[in-house]
Amino acid sequence: MIKHLSIIGVGLIGGSLALALKKAGVVEQVTGYARSAVAREEALALGIIDNSAETLAEAVADADVIFVAVPMGAMQSVFEQIAAHLKPQAIITDGGSAKQQVVDAARSALGEAFTRFVPGHPIAGTEKSGPSAALAELYQQHRVVLTPVAETDKSALERVRHMWQQAGADVFEMTIEHHDSILAATSHLPHLLAFNLVNQLAQREDCDEVLRYAAGGFRDFSRIASSDAVMWRDICLGNRSAILELLQQYRGGLDLIEKAIREDDGNYLIDIFGRAKQARDTRFAEPGLKDNSEV
Amino acid sequence: MIKHLSIIGVGLIGGSLALALKKAGVVEQVTGYARSAVAREEALALGIIDNSAETLAEAVADADVIFVAVPMGAMQSVFEQIAAHLKPQAIITDGGSAKQQVVDAARSALGEAFTRFVPGHPIAGTEKSGPSAALAELYQQHRVVLTPVAETDKSALERVRHMWQQAGADVFEMTIEHHDSILAATSHLPHLLAFNLVNQLAQREDCDEVLRYAAGGFRDFSRIASSDAVMWRDICLGNRSAILELLQQYRGGLDLIEKAIREDDGNYLIDIFGRAKQARDTRFAEPGLKDNSEV
Repeated sequence: MIKHLSIIGVGLIGGSLALALKKAGVVEQVTGYARSAVAREEALALGIIDNSAETLAEAVADADVIFVAVPMGAMQSVFEQIAAHLKPQAIITDGGSAKQQVVDAARSALGEAFTRFVPGHPIAGTEKSGPSAALAELYQQHRVVLTPVAETDKSALERVRHMWQQAGADVFEMTIEHHDSILAATSHLPHLLAFNLVNQLAQREDCDEVLRYAAGGFRDFSRIASSDAVMWRDICLGNRSAILELLQQYRGGLDLIEKAIREDDGNYLIDIFGRAKQARDTRFAEPGLKDNSEV
Repeated sequence: MIKHLSIIGVGLIGGSLALALKKAGVVEQVTGYARSAVAREEALALGIIDNSAETLAEAVADADVIFVAVPMGAMQSVFEQIAAHLKPQAIITDGGSAKQQVVDAARSALGEAFTRFVPGHPIAGTEKSGPSAALAELYQQHRVVLTPVAETDKSALERVRHMWQQAGADVFEMTIEHHDSILAATSHLPHLLAFNLVNQLAQREDCDEVLRYAAGGFRDFSRIASSDAVMWRDICLGNRSAILELLQQYRGGLDLIEKAIREDDGNYLIDIFGRAKQARDTRFAEPGLKDNSEV
């Protein structure tokens, strides 16, 4: 049971955790903070939070567990503003999509409380955002990755793991580096590729006509380009080195495909396309994976 | 009413047209040809075709309308083999995903029958293939593009247009060049990008683990990488110049995104991502578009 939970950022990710824990009956009181008064009012009206705080200091002053679910670029500033106002045993965790940057920010800003900071990443979401997108079921059967570091207090880690399990998630641990590389491959790079394609099409004079002839494959491929621009700017800059490394590899692959098309090398294309098809068909079969997943 | 329809290639595209016209009661007899005896038997057993032909000559000898729905790389050879066996007024049409190459092949192989060749492209499909994937409803509310040329007989064009309308499709006309550019942008390039990404991930030692952490966004983005390798080799080589042009542009966009990440230029990223999101959200809203669409 969590006596007093504080959610910093009451959007899809933060709001869904509050709703899930409330539904499970494992939290007594939820305070929420959002920069925008409109979002705070909305979160209150939707029953996501019980109290709304107007300052970060107020939001964390009495909290036992604090979940920071703001865009990654805002994490450092949040940590700096809450550090002096934490209760002695308060546990802090976050939902950032890349962990190295968040951990660096927490280490530099939280002082001795950094030992009770548990870096986390719920791998769930949709392309929607804001309090109204929050769902009590968002984390059911989804994975949450925790990336504790050497300093991380074991009991804080267990408490956060338990919290996520109560929200319905499957909790895994891995190193920061491994997490950031995996997410760059399966989430960050695909988002960049989709943003780039849709932006290219949007610049065409015949864009509206082009999109009329686009069908389901394009719609699925490009859905992630509907994601929030600020969030994705922060992820790109926050996971820069892993993303740049994979982007480099990706461009190498594209070079070879382009060369094969130019040189009429059908065998190379069949080989690449066939291997991709096989991997997609046979290795990407995860029965537990739900549709309502991170984009 | 079509007295005798011949389907060359009884897979998803050819089989679905036969089923749709049969369901609409507008075809008397359907003969099917497939290179593989297994596919011919399957198409017969599923009621997609009434007779199976063992040679192309036999398949077209009595046909009034011939629909060629084979991978684009096989079109020229099909045209060459049927040319001498066509009935005097037989109409030929096709389902190839890029039109210039098919039209060139038809022009060189069909002789005087080329005037009754109507180039077409039903923009529908799934990542599945073969007779068992055929659906009578596949073309309902989907677009079919016809790209007649100067030589194309007007009554042949009208007959093919009418046939597709009877199968439930919305029929549009455009130039070959326009068609090939639009499809390169919305279908061919996205397929290349997805094949390349999945192939890159498949080469990682930790591929299976990576895919376990991939969620809905990745699944949607990569679904088109399940498509048939031969078909896509043929499309890439068949629509080479339009694809290479767009690939060039795409890489230019990727260069700028990479530069922005490297140089910490968050404003550029917000700008690009925001414009993509806006285009995806506002300009890609096609109420008539069904889920069961081309990949």
